[in-house]
Amino acid sequence: MFDKFKDECGVFGIFGDLEAANMTYLGLYALQHRGQESAGIAAADGRQVRISRAMGYVADTFDGQTLAGLPGSTAIGHVRYSTAGESGLLNAQPILIDCAHGQIAICHNGNLVNARELRDDLVRRGSIFQSNSDTEVILHLYARSKASNVDDAIVESVTQVQGAFSLVMLMRDRLVAVRDPHGFRPLALGRLGDAVVICSETCAMDLIGATYERDVEPGEVLIVSADAVRSIKPFPPAPLAHCIFEHVYFARPDSYVFGRSVNEVRTDLGRILAKEQAVAADVVVPVPDSGVCAAMGFAEQSGVPLRIGLIRNHYVGRTFIQPQASIRHFGVKVKLNPVRSVLDGMRVILVDDSIVRGTTSQKIVKMVRAAGAKEVHLRISCPPTISPCFYGVDTPRTSELIAATHTLNEIREFVEADSVAYLSLEGLLSAVGTERSAYCSSCYTGRYPVAIPSDESSYLQLTLKLDKTEAVT
Amino acid sequence: MFDKFKDECGVFGIFGDLEAANMTYLGLYALQHRGQESAGIAAADGRQVRISRAMGYVADTFDGQTLAGLPGSTAIGHVRYSTAGESGLLNAQPILIDCAHGQIAICHNGNLVNARELRDDLVRRGSIFQSNSDTEVILHLYARSKASNVDDAIVESVTQVQGAFSLVMLMRDRLVAVRDPHGFRPLALGRLGDAVVICSETCAMDLIGATYERDVEPGEVLIVSADAVRSIKPFPPAPLAHCIFEHVYFARPDSYVFGRSVNEVRTDLGRILAKEQAVAADVVVPVPDSGVCAAMGFAEQSGVPLRIGLIRNHYVGRTFIQPQASIRHFGVKVKLNPVRSVLDGMRVILVDDSIVRGTTSQKIVKMVRAAGAKEVHLRISCPPTISPCFYGVDTPRTSELIAATHTLNEIREFVEADSVAYLSLEGLLSAVGTERSAYCSSCYTGRYPVAIPSDESSYLQLTLKLDKTEAVT
Amino acid sequence: MFDKFKDECGVFGIFGDLEAANMTYLGLYALQHRGQESAGIAAADGRQVRISRAMGYVADTFDGQTLAGLPGSTAIGHVRYSTAGESGLLNAQPILIDCAHGQIAICHNGNLVNARELRDDLVRRGSIFQSNSDTEVILHLYARSKASNVDDAIVESVTQVQGAFSLVMLMRDRLVAVRDPHGFRPLALGRLGDAVVICSETCAMDLIGATYERDVEPGEVLIVSADAVRSIKPFPPAPLAHCIFEHVYFARPDSYVFGRSVNEVRTDLGRILAKEQAVAADVVVPVPDSGVCAAMGFAEQSGVPLRIGLIRNHYVGRTFIQPQASIRHFGVKVKLNPVRSVLDGMRVILVDDSIVRGTTSQKIVKMVRAAGAKEVHLRISCPPTISPCFYGVDTPRTSELIAATHTLNEIREFVEADSVAYLSLEGLLSAVGTERSAYCSSCYTGRYPVAIPSDESSYLQLTLKLDKTEAVT
Amino acid sequence: MFDKFKDECGVFGIFGDLEAANMTYLGLYALQHRGQESAGIAAADGRQVRISRAMGYVADTFDGQTLAGLPGSTAIGHVRYSTAGESGLLNAQPILIDCAHGQIAICHNGNLVNARELRDDLVRRGSIFQSNSDTEVILHLYARSKASNVDDAIVESVTQVQGAFSLVMLMRDRLVAVRDPHGFRPLALGRLGDAVVICSETCAMDLIGATYERDVEPGEVLIVSADAVRSIKPFPPAPLAHCIFEHVYFARPDSYVFGRSVNEVRTDLGRILAKEQAVAADVVVPVPDSGVCAAMGFAEQSGVPLRIGLIRNHYVGRTFIQPQASIRHFGVKVKLNPVRSVLDGMRVILVDDSIVRGTTSQKIVKMVRAAGAKEVHLRISCPPTISPCFYGVDTPRTSELIAATHTLNEIREFVEADSVAYLSLEGLLSAVGTERSAYCSSCYTGRYPVAIPSDESSYLQLTLKLDKTEAVT
Repeated sequence: MFDKFKDECGVFGIFGDLEAANMTYLGLYALQHRGQESAGIAAADGRQVRISRAMGYVADTFDGQTLAGLPGSTAIGHVRYSTAGESGLLNAQPILIDCAHGQIAICHNGNLVNARELRDDLVRRGSIFQSNSDTEVILHLYARSKASNVDDAIVESVTQVQGAFSLVMLMRDRLVAVRDPHGFRPLALGRLGDAVVICSETCAMDLIGATYERDVEPGEVLIVSADAVRSIKPFPPAPLAHCIFEHVYFARPDSYVFGRSVNEVRTDLGRILAKEQAVAADVVVPVPDSGVCAAMGFAEQSGVPLRIGLIRNHYVGRTFIQPQASIRHFGVKVKLNPVRSVLDGMRVILVDDSIVRGTTSQKIVKMVRAAGAKEVHLRISCPPTISPCFYGVDTPRTSELIAATHTLNEIREFVEADSVAYLSLEGLLSAVGTERSAYCSSCYTGRYPVAIPSDESSYLQLTLKLDKTEAVT
Repeated sequence: MFDKFKDECGVFGIFGDLEAANMTYLGLYALQHRGQESAGIAAADGRQVRISRAMGYVADTFDGQTLAGLPGSTAIGHVRYSTAGESGLLNAQPILIDCAHGQIAICHNGNLVNARELRDDLVRRGSIFQSNSDTEVILHLYARSKASNVDDAIVESVTQVQGAFSLVMLMRDRLVAVRDPHGFRPLALGRLGDAVVICSETCAMDLIGATYERDVEPGEVLIVSADAVRSIKPFPPAPLAHCIFEHVYFARPDSYVFGRSVNEVRTDLGRILAKEQAVAADVVVPVPDSGVCAAMGFAEQSGVPLRIGLIRNHYVGRTFIQPQASIRHFGVKVKLNPVRSVLDGMRVILVDDSIVRGTTSQKIVKMVRAAGAKEVHLRISCPPTISPCFYGVDTPRTSELIAATHTLNEIREFVEADSVAYLSLEGLLSAVGTERSAYCSSCYTGRYPVAIPSDESSYLQLTLKLDKTEAVT
Repeated sequence: MFDKFKDECGVFGIFGDLEAANMTYLGLYALQHRGQESAGIAAADGRQVRISRAMGYVADTFDGQTLAGLPGSTAIGHVRYSTAGESGLLNAQPILIDCAHGQIAICHNGNLVNARELRDDLVRRGSIFQSNSDTEVILHLYARSKASNVDDAIVESVTQVQGAFSLVMLMRDRLVAVRDPHGFRPLALGRLGDAVVICSETCAMDLIGATYERDVEPGEVLIVSADAVRSIKPFPPAPLAHCIFEHVYFARPDSYVFGRSVNEVRTDLGRILAKEQAVAADVVVPVPDSGVCAAMGFAEQSGVPLRIGLIRNHYVGRTFIQPQASIRHFGVKVKLNPVRSVLDGMRVILVDDSIVRGTTSQKIVKMVRAAGAKEVHLRISCPPTISPCFYGVDTPRTSELIAATHTLNEIREFVEADSVAYLSLEGLLSAVGTERSAYCSSCYTGRYPVAIPSDESSYLQLTLKLDKTEAVT
Repeated sequence: MFDKFKDECGVFGIFGDLEAANMTYLGLYALQHRGQESAGIAAADGRQVRISRAMGYVADTFDGQTLAGLPGSTAIGHVRYSTAGESGLLNAQPILIDCAHGQIAICHNGNLVNARELRDDLVRRGSIFQSNSDTEVILHLYARSKASNVDDAIVESVTQVQGAFSLVMLMRDRLVAVRDPHGFRPLALGRLGDAVVICSETCAMDLIGATYERDVEPGEVLIVSADAVRSIKPFPPAPLAHCIFEHVYFARPDSYVFGRSVNEVRTDLGRILAKEQAVAADVVVPVPDSGVCAAMGFAEQSGVPLRIGLIRNHYVGRTFIQPQASIRHFGVKVKLNPVRSVLDGMRVILVDDSIVRGTTSQKIVKMVRAAGAKEVHLRISCPPTISPCFYGVDTPRTSELIAATHTLNEIREFVEADSVAYLSLEGLLSAVGTERSAYCSSCYTGRYPVAIPSDESSYLQLTLKLDKTEAVT
């Protein structure tokens, strides 16, 4: 609905809990913001792996009967942002296969930049692909590994892929977590009693009452079985490249990501933005929900009072119809309610986390003016986004990113604001701490820490939105 | 989900717009917060009145085909909080009947305190009742009126009922709006081009682009037909009794109600509360979503920084299942996410708009403590609620209201807070302006401006929640 | 789907069984052929009457939870052929009301010919109507009765209506069955242990294991309470007028109706038709399912072998889509499969129970020819239908009945058969026994045993199909 | 519902029709009796293959929008009897993959007896399996083929599998049909204008107006492309083994299967049975629907009149609930209605097509007696079924087949009939013509024309019903 970059997945895993599938259900519920289109759970009872997947929200998709059909003390789960229909379900995760090493289920957050090359090679060698998912590549590498045990086969397969991958995998009798050596996507490790918990964000631990211990380290392969928790570091050294957009927008504010509180970082972004881009105004108004933390920091720093001048409507529903011709100019008005008593006659600072195409911003500015605002100053709590992401985020092509093709002044004119200003990259990095080099900021700079595919368009076909019924390229 | 008083209805009407049913759809969508269980629209094309009603959200319930089946330039609509199943639909509004004066459809926000007596009398005279709704009484009075024209029949019927009633009615060729002489419930009048718009709250006008003109006055009967807009004042003079809870909790912050901005009043409540009930603390945290405005005022007045320490989860869905026994202690945790980085080690002021039974407050305080809060001070932006409402609000009986049966200290012990404090009635009234006597504050005082039924229990049976399959008492 | 007269309702009632709602569910399931659009059950536990109604098949509509919500040892139920959507549900039965005599629920099979006059009078006296149903009139008469007890009130109300009515009614503590003095519609009485069972057709008794005792007699009011089973005969003497179409088409072949086996009557119709309208042919082929019994009799009598030359497809589903333009000529082909090996090169006698508009017959004849039939002779097991029914059957207007506006030869030309022949009225009556005068054959003769409304068109508006959203005229 | 062997699939393909997906939809609709659990269509537009699959009936599953999403002039489709839920959809067909030879979609009717061995070998060589379907094996063989073109790769893969397989396959630009050299399952070839049509039964051609030309021959590989229709015969000579049960029960009576009319064969079975197993009786009553043709032949031959003594209830619905304990003895009564007027006092010959476990027969006999039958003689129009099928039919294990474990007299005692008699194998074979050796009758004899797997239990796990959530063994 809103014009945002979209995180593509959240993953969860638990080993050693009699309620493994139930816990995974709750964990996925907490990670729902990372993917709303499909959800899936696989569980192992020591002898067999079972799976259930469906389109829709976790809370609408699973019921007690489905969870009861997933017995066992180990489970993994996945929420996914993906396309609808048949191809949606085909590409839903976990993917469960049977192969020479037995059953394995996999959940993946991230994106592999050498998936096309690996896939072409696998296909040449006789493999068949049933989805468009880059994740399927890992399963083929695993199945073809000549390693004498499953752990070695895992290591052999994950060391061949490049790009962003936070993985949880499930075999008959073990849980595996893997994080790429750059650490693009978060992956946290915790405990629930004796059980081991792995998840994309700590908010999933909070809900089930688990305790955060540490992050799965970049380049770490963690194998959890009844005997032991083994940690292997099979990857060559690589520079860190945490996705800074997790802090800017993706992660839930109550999570800790890359070791830092998302809420604190986001509030700091607002404070720094207020220092960098001050403007005389009467009220600071967040664009809900994602602009709230930054707006709070902005208001505090600037001394301009914070006001709820836009309220999000949560009754939109899946089937809201656009009424007929004569009243079709509603757009963002059905999602955001402007509060006239806050905006009327005011000089308003609108704080949002990012601008992608600019179309939503334009509508919001117009709406705020219609509610009486005298001036509208748009403040964005990150730098201009000028490059697409190849590491597991759904972004448009460069040509669709307004900041890639327009000057700041042109953007201002497009969104019809009195002023538009972004946070500086320097400011952004300063908010996430001293080890700034640990972050990937390619969407702001176009400098990619891991070589991206030469054939960008074929790559985008592979990984991004597909036609509704296009199941296999 | 949350333990709140519940508004029972929202009404909308429009006369003279070719898109009448579509506009009503949008108006109801804006009023969805006033009733989520059922929705209905009736439209008239000069010759006939047609109707469509269904259980569920407006955006999920109506589609283009349904609206296309409601032709005509006049329409009314209703959203309702009511019980599920057959009885839910039976009691859904508008109610459409045929009688001696022709077809009439009615939508009602409020509650009639003499419905039982009138009903008993009507039944004695041979009327049949198909619902539990007090509203059906008005239709019978109308049908039995010997008046020579429909306008007189309307006046004759509405002057016989007592209590709270903001009504919109639809005949073949006219729209009628009625507000009881005490003005319990809001009812606003506006224009959309040449069309006349009537609605519970101004936010419905904002969405469709209509302009607020004035409130339908307490005691006013407004009859809109092709010839004229007639205003009649057939009621004897009566003291005003605007529902103060509309400002405290029910109305949408972007609405103007009883001539005042809800957002402003609510922020003022927080400011006054901060003056009355200051406490040393590190952060002010609103209980979302209803505590946000007051918390903002509280933070501003007190100088204690506002922080988003609780985030509402909007993915709950209708079918969230409570997992099995061993993990059933979730409760409010699936709806609210505590932000540890905000709460940990802090002295927290929690601002909420009201406490009903106290059970939700108890869980929230516990959750905030579990997230590390050192102290938790609960501040409520209205006085203790000690009496049920008989004017159109779904409240529990006196015995279930914690403030009616416990001292302040007992409440504090029950919710396990370090301190609990309410806004004073004086403070509450001061926020809504100088004409304090214009408000009904019976839920805080037990002093009812209109005599309530002697047989309270039979009365509650008539108007409050019914058994799922109990269609007629 | 097929072009047939449609029965409008089936009714069921049971008194004195602890599983009353469950038994009613099963009884309605057995009566499903009498109405597929909506179904409803009301149950009484001695203190209160509860109700549940829904659109759709009985087996899809009720579940264990719904039935559990209908406690009590007395229940009534109804299946109805009616229009879809809101108005469908509004007109669904039972209708449950509260009035001066307490709660009463009613189920009606039939049609009242003086409903408009009574309704006009009731409206004049201040009654309100919430549906288009003629049945609502009976409830108003009951509510307005000054009788000192409910039994007298029942008698007073049912003796004012005219036309066809087989009724079951339910009060707090009693079950009432009423059949109009002409006995238009069937109504059977039986026992299940000590419980009393009332139903439209005996097949409902067969399913639940009840034993048929006798029919509720024409003109009988049967009141079943804990004390006694009272039989009252309050109507003046009237000539019998059993609906002969029940035997021709409506009733289930395994039922006994008006004291005779439907299967036997229907097979006899075929035998007599074979005598009256013999033709040289190679095979007798029934039009499924309704032509099967008559075809069997026809084949036996004529010595021409019976063959299944048309097979009904039961996978049609509710949502079968008509594919695009170029292949839209399917029509009846998706419902009936012609068996080429039976039809190819053959002289075929097609046996059907009736022709209404002739359009379906035309398609079937064409299909049979396309499968290779050399000759097609259409034989109809009743006389030409030339007049609409006003006693509870959904028929088109006279102008749409092909036999009312075309000669036999024109019909033959229209359906493109080699010959068309109908059973004679004499033949039809001889099959139902010696007391031929006991039957209503108005649809074949236009002679109506009870005066029909002068204003036919207003009457048809009242009782026949309504616009989807037209809830009240 | 009924205790029958179940056919597992129907297939359809069309090449060269602009409405290919629509035609496939209709073709599958005609083949619905061959599989009711899932349905799927794949279509190719020369560049790409798209797919849509779903659980449920064809008519409920596809809508215009879905079909519009399947453009192209070539399409294949499949209906399947399979398990519900995730595993149901995972195992639904067509299966669409991408591999070294490009995209290919496959539909399979039959069963491979060497699937386990091939799968084990493929797994050893690094293939991954995502379903339990034996069909997936063919795709892996195809993907691994080193052949230089797709046609050779097809031949290479299908010549490695053994057992029963009638296949239709779809590539970007061609349609392939394959039938195993024994010709177990039917597969017919026809024309619709210039388009080539392939389908399991000719009834699919009848619906869309295509003309039957010939069967795809046992051992034939038919490759249809824009250039030509190539016929290849790559299999070594093998004895024919047409499934005789297609004639006994599976196929639709209006189809021609293995070159003969199903209806004629089935009627002949009844005639021969009457000769072999005559018994003095008053009526012949078919068990609907499958016993009707044979009963007709039986009645004709024996001179005993045919009567519809059992009527199938078509309102059962998917959700029919079994009412509570006290009335739970309904069973077959909700599906079959006994006609007392036919059965009462009669000596009844019940004609059915087969007995599997005997439980349904027992209930039917009991029901017929309860309706008054004096004697019940059960006549079965095929020999005793004593062995499971391994060629694509869902049968129970040997131990569950009543005829495998009981003598004829014990069967009679179990079903409580006065006599039970089966058709002789000789009689059965004589009905299907002179080339009797062309048929597989292993279910009657235990003599399997193609070696069955040594590990029967592992085999049954692979191919038969799976646990609801068991996606991969």
